[in-house]
Amino acid sequence: MTSQPHTPLLDRVRSPADLKRMSDAELRALADELRAETIASVSKTGGHLGAGLGVVEMTVAIHAVFDTPRDRLIWDVSHQCYPHKILTGRRDRMPSLRQKDGISGFTKRSESPYDPFGAAHSSTSISAALGFAVARDLGGAPEHGLGDAIAVIGDGALSAGMAYEAMNNAGHLGKRLIVILNDNEMSIAPPTGAMSSYLSRLYAGAPFQELKAAAKGAVSLLPEPFQEGARRAKELLKAATVGGTLFEELGFSYVGPIDGHDMEQLLAVLRTVKVRADGPILIHAITKKGKGYVHAESKPDGGHATTKFDVLTGEQKKAPSNAPSYTKVFAQALIREAEDDPLITAVTAAMPDGTGLNLFAERFPNRCFDVGIAEQHAVTFSAGMAAGGLKPFCALYSTFLQRGYDQVVHDVAIQRLPVRFAIDRAGLVGADGATHAGSFDIAYLANLPGFVVMAAADEAELVHMVATARAIDDRPSAFRFPRGEGVGVEMPERGTVLEIGKGRIVAEGSRVAILSFGTRLKEVQDAAEALSANGITPTIADARFAKPLDEDLILQLARHHEALITIEEGAIGGFGSHVAQLLAENGMFDSGLRYRSMVLPDIFIDQASPRDMYAVAAMNAEDIVAKVLRTLDIGVIGKRA
Amino acid sequence: MTSQPHTPLLDRVRSPADLKRMSDAELRALADELRAETIASVSKTGGHLGAGLGVVEMTVAIHAVFDTPRDRLIWDVSHQCYPHKILTGRRDRMPSLRQKDGISGFTKRSESPYDPFGAAHSSTSISAALGFAVARDLGGAPEHGLGDAIAVIGDGALSAGMAYEAMNNAGHLGKRLIVILNDNEMSIAPPTGAMSSYLSRLYAGAPFQELKAAAKGAVSLLPEPFQEGARRAKELLKAATVGGTLFEELGFSYVGPIDGHDMEQLLAVLRTVKVRADGPILIHAITKKGKGYVHAESKPDGGHATTKFDVLTGEQKKAPSNAPSYTKVFAQALIREAEDDPLITAVTAAMPDGTGLNLFAERFPNRCFDVGIAEQHAVTFSAGMAAGGLKPFCALYSTFLQRGYDQVVHDVAIQRLPVRFAIDRAGLVGADGATHAGSFDIAYLANLPGFVVMAAADEAELVHMVATARAIDDRPSAFRFPRGEGVGVEMPERGTVLEIGKGRIVAEGSRVAILSFGTRLKEVQDAAEALSANGITPTIADARFAKPLDEDLILQLARHHEALITIEEGAIGGFGSHVAQLLAENGMFDSGLRYRSMVLPDIFIDQASPRDMYAVAAMNAEDIVAKVLRTLDIGVIGKRA
Repeated sequence: MTSQPHTPLLDRVRSPADLKRMSDAELRALADELRAETIASVSKTGGHLGAGLGVVEMTVAIHAVFDTPRDRLIWDVSHQCYPHKILTGRRDRMPSLRQKDGISGFTKRSESPYDPFGAAHSSTSISAALGFAVARDLGGAPEHGLGDAIAVIGDGALSAGMAYEAMNNAGHLGKRLIVILNDNEMSIAPPTGAMSSYLSRLYAGAPFQELKAAAKGAVSLLPEPFQEGARRAKELLKAATVGGTLFEELGFSYVGPIDGHDMEQLLAVLRTVKVRADGPILIHAITKKGKGYVHAESKPDGGHATTKFDVLTGEQKKAPSNAPSYTKVFAQALIREAEDDPLITAVTAAMPDGTGLNLFAERFPNRCFDVGIAEQHAVTFSAGMAAGGLKPFCALYSTFLQRGYDQVVHDVAIQRLPVRFAIDRAGLVGADGATHAGSFDIAYLANLPGFVVMAAADEAELVHMVATARAIDDRPSAFRFPRGEGVGVEMPERGTVLEIGKGRIVAEGSRVAILSFGTRLKEVQDAAEALSANGITPTIADARFAKPLDEDLILQLARHHEALITIEEGAIGGFGSHVAQLLAENGMFDSGLRYRSMVLPDIFIDQASPRDMYAVAAMNAEDIVAKVLRTLDIGVIGKRA
Repeated sequence: MTSQPHTPLLDRVRSPADLKRMSDAELRALADELRAETIASVSKTGGHLGAGLGVVEMTVAIHAVFDTPRDRLIWDVSHQCYPHKILTGRRDRMPSLRQKDGISGFTKRSESPYDPFGAAHSSTSISAALGFAVARDLGGAPEHGLGDAIAVIGDGALSAGMAYEAMNNAGHLGKRLIVILNDNEMSIAPPTGAMSSYLSRLYAGAPFQELKAAAKGAVSLLPEPFQEGARRAKELLKAATVGGTLFEELGFSYVGPIDGHDMEQLLAVLRTVKVRADGPILIHAITKKGKGYVHAESKPDGGHATTKFDVLTGEQKKAPSNAPSYTKVFAQALIREAEDDPLITAVTAAMPDGTGLNLFAERFPNRCFDVGIAEQHAVTFSAGMAAGGLKPFCALYSTFLQRGYDQVVHDVAIQRLPVRFAIDRAGLVGADGATHAGSFDIAYLANLPGFVVMAAADEAELVHMVATARAIDDRPSAFRFPRGEGVGVEMPERGTVLEIGKGRIVAEGSRVAILSFGTRLKEVQDAAEALSANGITPTIADARFAKPLDEDLILQLARHHEALITIEEGAIGGFGSHVAQLLAENGMFDSGLRYRSMVLPDIFIDQASPRDMYAVAAMNAEDIVAKVLRTLDIGVIGKRA
């Protein structure tokens, strides 16, 4: 059922300015309409639902009280930005959400002036807001003006050190800055960590009824005219609530906890803060992820992400799958290895479901560690375990491993510690777009001395690489694999340890050799089939390792073919660059080898299906065909140019 | 004066086991000897002095009470590890400290079993210690056993989010873990940030006299036998001191503050903790950087780092400098640009002196931001300022920028925000060794779409690049420069804005072109001089930009020479790889161009002078000569092979 909700108030909203003309009662009603609209919209496109439903009232209240876009509103991670997008002139584009040429599932500067700072990775909002606050005070944007800087950040995002760094600095600088802690006791998974318990204790100390009274009381207590300045206001606000010592120790004024679904309370507190606040202030709002939609609220993850669904029943529409997902294959392979190796442990940074480690945790609860959104710690914690004789598998998305890069270099690589990195979401990822693309890991890992860097060509290869990583006990290793389903190959009973630094010939041919690293192999095989129509039978090889390189294989391919083409799902600087260096050092170019390297292009590619994104990257089968023909100087009619 | 101190007790120490046989009074005297030994030792080698002097008593006490190396002792950053090295069998190797083939200035796993986890970058110790604690509980090291995990971390290091992530996770896991907060109110520079004020307040609340009594009292209060378990011990310890709410909120038991120079207090507290602690515990010790050596104590930085010096006078022996340091040239150039551009701001992560921004801060105190050891925040804070219309220069060492890599990708590059990265300590850095080498920034930045990546060939070029970065207002940019002095070129009155993506021909020649990116240019010129003896006159070009590449220049060089050799002070994947990709795409290899790329080798290079390190890397003038000859198939006798 996808009937359109009745939205008379929302229909009057062209921009947030229209909210200024509404009464508080209308704003309350508008929030209800906005919630229904959000549900209806996501039911048709799929996307992130629970987070948005949790901030419907907050979204309305912020835009009603503050003067966006002059006031800069920054949504942390921005999974929760759909209601914001609907209110800020993008309602009619919501059907294109997360699709090719459509609007992004995240905030995006290029999309709207109401998105002053894009996001998708967690915990950046306070840093960015502090930057705007400084810019305001130093006259950074004289043309349009720059008012308040407001960051909305979830409790899960607070487990990241970056948020703490930013609060620490903001408390020190003392500039006016508004942080709204959207505390739903949930990031994507239920949060772990001591901060989470701390927030729970704050919350537990204050039942909603009392909170409501307290917050209203705080506002009514404010003297008019306000004689003693903002310091007094803060004291009053603080005194009227249960306190937030930790934030206060970091230099923030603390207001809360308040009920983040109570429009009256939200408006009262925000209006007071707007008028009274000086210095950094933290408003602690308690919300419920998935609020107001039973089929989201009732789920353990608050209805975090969804495919298209039926609004009435909540039933999701899923395409039938042909093969298991790489994520699940990884998890099952790791469980199998861990069954006869008690030293294997697993680490996730707040993504137990996304990495498949929820399955591992069920089987081995004492050997699985969800460290929160804390990739820096995840990496060095893994390094410590490795130094202590364990065999840690640190499972992160490629793009999030960037958060722990220095730790990979300094704590793992330099010490040559056998941490195993399971890198999910390698390459282009589809609907999440550029911010989630795993483009850089080959380049930033393969130049680290001592590392072993693998990429699985299919889901069976992934099983072997899990076994191989387990066996690599004298140095760090990484294996990467993409988002989505495997290609449907036959699966081995269990993994075989691969010979380190050895690739494999997949098909023997002549004239041109195509050397693939990762799951473009299927496209290469499709391309080879098409090329046979041109009378060309390429040799196809699967490199398996970007480091160490299979030097013998590569030099043999170079010696026995006119042309050698590498392909990888990564940016320049990775596999192809290592191959080129090997070829150069061995003088293979001196005698005229036609060498080409197919890598991700020098652009950030917007969301679309992975296939469409790879079309933009010119890395699908047809692009490989064209590359081979051009490299051999052969025109489409099959003749040498 | 470098007379040898009288050290009868220290002379009896072959390993920490010898401390177990000493009385408390002897341990106190041993600490005095160890301090004198440390001062005498550093006076002869130079190195980090102040941090070590601050932990002399703590070092003795920890080794006396705990059972190292079975108990894992992890020094954060490890500038303070010299007394530890002296006690753990490396006393006779101290004269080789920080020198070629000598011992490292940091802890290092390969150097000693007493260094279970190496360090050099800040704030990793709690993560690593937690890894050891988990490994202990999961039976990770059955052969030698694994006891306590002890992290010693400074208050400055606590400003890094990573330390907070680790505490958050440790508090959640609840495993026995000992963290000693070495609070000297100082990292390298005096610390900034709200955490620092928090610690000061804790400290201010408890004068030393009272603290001493309290700590002793706490210990004597402990019931024997201990009936109610560790919880009671913690309560007693806590009750007897001023409290540490913030740490307790994160799930740690808090003991302190105690006087970190009072051996009696240290031994009493550590012994109690060893026997009684369960779960994570934080011991807050107040120390003085440079303690006990007037010429260190009296300095603003506590005598952080020093060249060789006279023990009696404290006078440092410095080699006369021929040219200004790159760091100072950068700072002065930035000040000059900022004088007529009020939108320029500068950001440092706790390194105002190291980056030269102390000079900027003197001139423009409101436009300079020291965010603490917080590179993640530093980058996104800069991105926020750029989005707010300012022109932030984010000044970091190459190796520390790795800490903010995801923020560079996600917040700066994807949003195409004009943050200017001033990357100091690019390439090999000398005495600090592998952990401080700036090897990877070219590779990890030049493959980010939209970035401008520059390297200065000399100090005059650096001035131009500061001016150029200021002018690049539509996208991110970075310019890198090495540690140490410039080459002594004539300095421009002020910088000229360079044409983006354009290199320059330095010398016209034939047969071989050498294309340099960065300060190897001088070595290339020296090599060219030597090559003229072989009748070869190379063309020399300075690329200036790794991105965007000067495609015209590079293709011209390729077309008009038999050979093209690139050289850069960075690992594979950077400038040379981009050049190779350009050449490949343009079919330059197809006709047999002799292409070579000189990059840092695939090893982590131990400390030595930069020149010696570059000799290991085979990137000095003589290596370039050899490379040219080999590439042209010319033997040393000047004949074509």
